[in-house]
Amino acid sequence: MRITLLIGSTFGQKTKIAADHLLSDLKEKHPEHEIDLLDLADYKMEFSDGRNFLDYSGDTGTVVRQLMEADTIFLITPIFQASIPGSLKNVFDLLPVQAFRDKVVGIVAVAGSEKHYLTIEQQLKPILAFMKAQIVQTYVFMLDTDFVADKIANDDIIFRLNRLVEETIDTARIYQELQAENDAKYDF
Amino acid sequence: MRITLLIGSTFGQKTKIAADHLLSDLKEKHPEHEIDLLDLADYKMEFSDGRNFLDYSGDTGTVVRQLMEADTIFLITPIFQASIPGSLKNVFDLLPVQAFRDKVVGIVAVAGSEKHYLTIEQQLKPILAFMKAQIVQTYVFMLDTDFVADKIANDDIIFRLNRLVEETIDTARIYQELQAENDAKYDF
Amino acid sequence: MRITLLIGSTFGQKTKIAADHLLSDLKEKHPEHEIDLLDLADYKMEFSDGRNFLDYSGDTGTVVRQLMEADTIFLITPIFQASIPGSLKNVFDLLPVQAFRDKVVGIVAVAGSEKHYLTIEQQLKPILAFMKAQIVQTYVFMLDTDFVADKIANDDIIFRLNRLVEETIDTARIYQELQAENDAKYDF
Amino acid sequence: MRITLLIGSTFGQKTKIAADHLLSDLKEKHPEHEIDLLDLADYKMEFSDGRNFLDYSGDTGTVVRQLMEADTIFLITPIFQASIPGSLKNVFDLLPVQAFRDKVVGIVAVAGSEKHYLTIEQQLKPILAFMKAQIVQTYVFMLDTDFVADKIANDDIIFRLNRLVEETIDTARIYQELQAENDAKYDF
Repeated sequence: MRITLLIGSTFGQKTKIAADHLLSDLKEKHPEHEIDLLDLADYKMEFSDGRNFLDYSGDTGTVVRQLMEADTIFLITPIFQASIPGSLKNVFDLLPVQAFRDKVVGIVAVAGSEKHYLTIEQQLKPILAFMKAQIVQTYVFMLDTDFVADKIANDDIIFRLNRLVEETIDTARIYQELQAENDAKYDF
Repeated sequence: MRITLLIGSTFGQKTKIAADHLLSDLKEKHPEHEIDLLDLADYKMEFSDGRNFLDYSGDTGTVVRQLMEADTIFLITPIFQASIPGSLKNVFDLLPVQAFRDKVVGIVAVAGSEKHYLTIEQQLKPILAFMKAQIVQTYVFMLDTDFVADKIANDDIIFRLNRLVEETIDTARIYQELQAENDAKYDF
Repeated sequence: MRITLLIGSTFGQKTKIAADHLLSDLKEKHPEHEIDLLDLADYKMEFSDGRNFLDYSGDTGTVVRQLMEADTIFLITPIFQASIPGSLKNVFDLLPVQAFRDKVVGIVAVAGSEKHYLTIEQQLKPILAFMKAQIVQTYVFMLDTDFVADKIANDDIIFRLNRLVEETIDTARIYQELQAENDAKYDF
Repeated sequence: MRITLLIGSTFGQKTKIAADHLLSDLKEKHPEHEIDLLDLADYKMEFSDGRNFLDYSGDTGTVVRQLMEADTIFLITPIFQASIPGSLKNVFDLLPVQAFRDKVVGIVAVAGSEKHYLTIEQQLKPILAFMKAQIVQTYVFMLDTDFVADKIANDDIIFRLNRLVEETIDTARIYQELQAENDAKYDF
């Protein structure tokens, strides 16, 4: 299984710390999978101009191809202006309609205030559903105050991040079994 | 009064046609105002990196400064992946929290399907409300099929666009009167 | 001007306390208006069955008629299951489409957690916009902990409630002026 | 497995016709399950008053108990005022927080206009997610015009309803397998 972690903003340490935690946990407990991390801070992205995703080259091409090839995606995103960053939405705009069909997506959000907790339900999940993702319903919502000295300083959050890893991997596995079952049934 | 029209995507003719219609109508009926059009297709925008908006230079600096100086803003945006484009969200990310305080905002959306009608209510208005805009509630929702040969081919839509202009200008005017009244009351 | 305060749930003391505060403030500062309070706890409401609102009798008829006759409405509602109560939504269902056209609506929410702050943006405002209300954008979001011994124990909240009263009355006033101006213009 | 179909409004033939179609399809293809239909038109429901769900008697008690005992739920709901009916929301209000934990929920909506397509994403799914349901992402959205002479007159819709049945049953089955596996792992 190919697993890609995508950090949705072009700056900020906290999403990187959360993503690194997921990456370590995945590599330790699920080393059999191919796992990689895309941090938008490391890529010079173009804005979507309506082209097919295969026609982008350079960093933009690398990011969209890697997402399209993933079976399982973890989105780690800050909340800006009560929504997801433009940089993350732009990645979605670069991808085809239904790009997340047959992909399982787990979500981690990092925000400055509890008041933005429902942003994921209201702004992100409807986009992922439109793009046909299998969304892991329970997301991890982290506050800036959960980080101290570049570390996650909240054991409950660490528990939730690790549980998100297991739940996402489990969902991906059973979803793949179901696909195989359906393929056999219809003799594809 | 300074009025800015912002086209929220970096490509596409239809939002440009709709914006040009608003611009003509504004210049004809309200020539006393200072009116200009920002088309993101004409500007090379950077992604927000968390700096203060005054610290951006070049095209990015031009766009954010012009928006901050406007009293009234018309947003003309396509719908991508059941939400606003990343390019438009990025403009919001470049601006300060509460950037739209005391600004009146009118909205025109162009979509491929009626199914995306509620995107404005659910994805755009909550962001504008968070940024403290005075939102003109009734927006104009246009379909791709409302355009024929680079013209708006739907009289009802033209009526609605013109009504949006009047309603937005009226709202801005009474809102400014209310501000003046409050300033006088509190002897500012 | 006719002002109606509607408490959206059939039980609970906190929304009643908040509504009583608004009522006192309105009666003290704006005694020239006709002001009344509808507490759903005091009315035996039927579920909407698709009839015209004029065809309901008894308590249901009283509530819907009073709302239809109001110029300005304050909604005071708890948050249940991350949304507005069924009892409040049922009142909306009893009313005609566009029932709130030309009415100004101010909102107070009482919740158990800050995590439900965006419920108003995402669940309530889109319904009010569909029903054509002029929504006062800034709502007052109260927590259970803002109440102590049947009193509002948070000065910032009291300030916000009083400001909501002023902002709603001001908006209603200028909105009526605008309507009168437009009526004169079109010689109605 | 216990499967309950819930019709979310107290009147209207179309949701009943859609629910009857699901019921027939379920009984024909999955006769091994215990299947029943709750039509809110047949029950005299009380409004939630904050009691524990076990303390309701009569029709209200019957409805909430049956929902709590279901493993799989199909919600068939009309759209009223751009949202779910108050009668359906009231059922949710009667249930405990997290009432849908470990339950799989499939959704059918019946609306008068395509413009309300996103209502399910924006108003219903966030409530179900808060109540911890495993939501089947792809819902069936029906228009009034899909019904002719008390029959579903749209083959594509019939295909989608049948597919929703299979997808919901499949999801419930693999979800139960996953639960059993996790229980074994943790030796519960």
